[in-house]
Amino acid sequence: MNIGFIGLGIMGAPMAGHLAAAGHRIATVTHRTAPPAALVESGLVVCGSPREVAEQADVVVLMLPDTPDVEKVLFAAGGVAEGLAAGTTVIDMSSIDPIATRNFARRIAEVGCDYVDAPVSGGEIGAKNAALTIMCGAEAPVFERVLPLLQLMGKNITHVGGIGDGQVAKVANQIIVALNIEAVAEALVFAAKAGADPAKVREALLGGFASSRILEVHAERMITRSFQPGFRIGLHQKDLNLALSSARALGLSLPNTAIAQQMFSTCVAHGGADLDHSAMVRAIELMSDCKLG
Amino acid sequence: MNIGFIGLGIMGAPMAGHLAAAGHRIATVTHRTAPPAALVESGLVVCGSPREVAEQADVVVLMLPDTPDVEKVLFAAGGVAEGLAAGTTVIDMSSIDPIATRNFARRIAEVGCDYVDAPVSGGEIGAKNAALTIMCGAEAPVFERVLPLLQLMGKNITHVGGIGDGQVAKVANQIIVALNIEAVAEALVFAAKAGADPAKVREALLGGFASSRILEVHAERMITRSFQPGFRIGLHQKDLNLALSSARALGLSLPNTAIAQQMFSTCVAHGGADLDHSAMVRAIELMSDCKLG
Repeated sequence: MNIGFIGLGIMGAPMAGHLAAAGHRIATVTHRTAPPAALVESGLVVCGSPREVAEQADVVVLMLPDTPDVEKVLFAAGGVAEGLAAGTTVIDMSSIDPIATRNFARRIAEVGCDYVDAPVSGGEIGAKNAALTIMCGAEAPVFERVLPLLQLMGKNITHVGGIGDGQVAKVANQIIVALNIEAVAEALVFAAKAGADPAKVREALLGGFASSRILEVHAERMITRSFQPGFRIGLHQKDLNLALSSARALGLSLPNTAIAQQMFSTCVAHGGADLDHSAMVRAIELMSDCKLG
Repeated sequence: MNIGFIGLGIMGAPMAGHLAAAGHRIATVTHRTAPPAALVESGLVVCGSPREVAEQADVVVLMLPDTPDVEKVLFAAGGVAEGLAAGTTVIDMSSIDPIATRNFARRIAEVGCDYVDAPVSGGEIGAKNAALTIMCGAEAPVFERVLPLLQLMGKNITHVGGIGDGQVAKVANQIIVALNIEAVAEALVFAAKAGADPAKVREALLGGFASSRILEVHAERMITRSFQPGFRIGLHQKDLNLALSSARALGLSLPNTAIAQQMFSTCVAHGGADLDHSAMVRAIELMSDCKLG
């Protein structure tokens, strides 16, 4: 299959690599940095514009940083929309605004093409191991058609619902992850300030109703001060911005998400934008003048 | 062994039952309600005061609602402290204030006795099945001595640290459980308001970094509107009060715990004090005029 893949960053490059390894022909667009050597060796085609990428593709995959990037690549002059032949499918695997996503899908439908939103979680390691969790929004027949491609990149693939619902699930995921980190941070700082050993408290709580992946992984990071990312605070802050701006547009109140966002801002103020998101505990520590480790 | 057991409520009665079934002789104090028939049949001794209970006990176990109840039973006129022979051990399995606990332990030490705080989680079902999680604060030799008794009532038993540290762990547990419920509630109401199916979003998130016991159990309750307790909002609110008053005493800021407490107050305002704590989602729904189910 001819696949256009735009966004060969830390995650996009290994994802495109899995598609190439399965025998698909990958085209991409020129960029200020050189394309990854492994992809070039597998026959990567480099085009002059997103339009040219779309012109030779059966499927166009996007893996871009944020909503404005996706909008520009799709709809600016020389963008994907200008090059799409009717029947081509656009799969946006970026994590972007669910409401904007539905708007983009409508505009892509106007040129006779299908749209799938398929944001991922699992980070660089998940991308390299083709083990990403993929949350899909698409009409059912379109989902069935793209599923074999998604299975080359991920393992836990859910068809959440119609267009945009993949992005909704991703935002929900980022809300829960941030708030579970915040929860563990409050609990462990409480424990330390009250004179107990946070590591023993964590151990006592594992297996009960307080148990979570965050208590397993991120609480351990807080206690051992292992703040190399992982997932960077700056990126999670972008995701919470998305949650809060969507919530505002929808007329929805997310009080603890708003607090968590402010905690991340405290971390950024202290130079922590590139630390793992488990370093949110530093904001609670600062507020209470108490350190876990 | 002669065991004094004060507080034969919903949880205390089956816990004392397990001790009696293992051959221990149980004494308790008269109460406005009749003692459980099963315990009476096993030879329950009913005394006129906590002092009399203590006088004939090798170990005194307390399972009471709140800090003032424990203080009164231990130290009021006719209380446990008046009846203790040196070398008796007091095990408080109530969930109460960690700071008060350390004070109670000091006063018990003055009459030559040991003190263990051993609050539990697992609710009525855990109590009946002798499957409680028990978080222990005690000096190491005292913990070793009481462990065989605790093993008759619970399964996941952790020696968290010195006196009071069991209560600290229990408060930490209740903070995380409340905040993980709040997290799931914000995420699912966001999903519903954004037009996705909350059940499908939950399914997409299970297995990833957002996964938790709360996402498994309580998110399911929110979606299916199964708000029969479980664990009542009124009780969890008491536990968060404990967290927030301890935090204030310690000079500690717990912003999301404070918000969760207010959410519970919203639920109580709408008649929900006796609903399961997963009904906290109703507060988020009310704020955003959106219902999951």
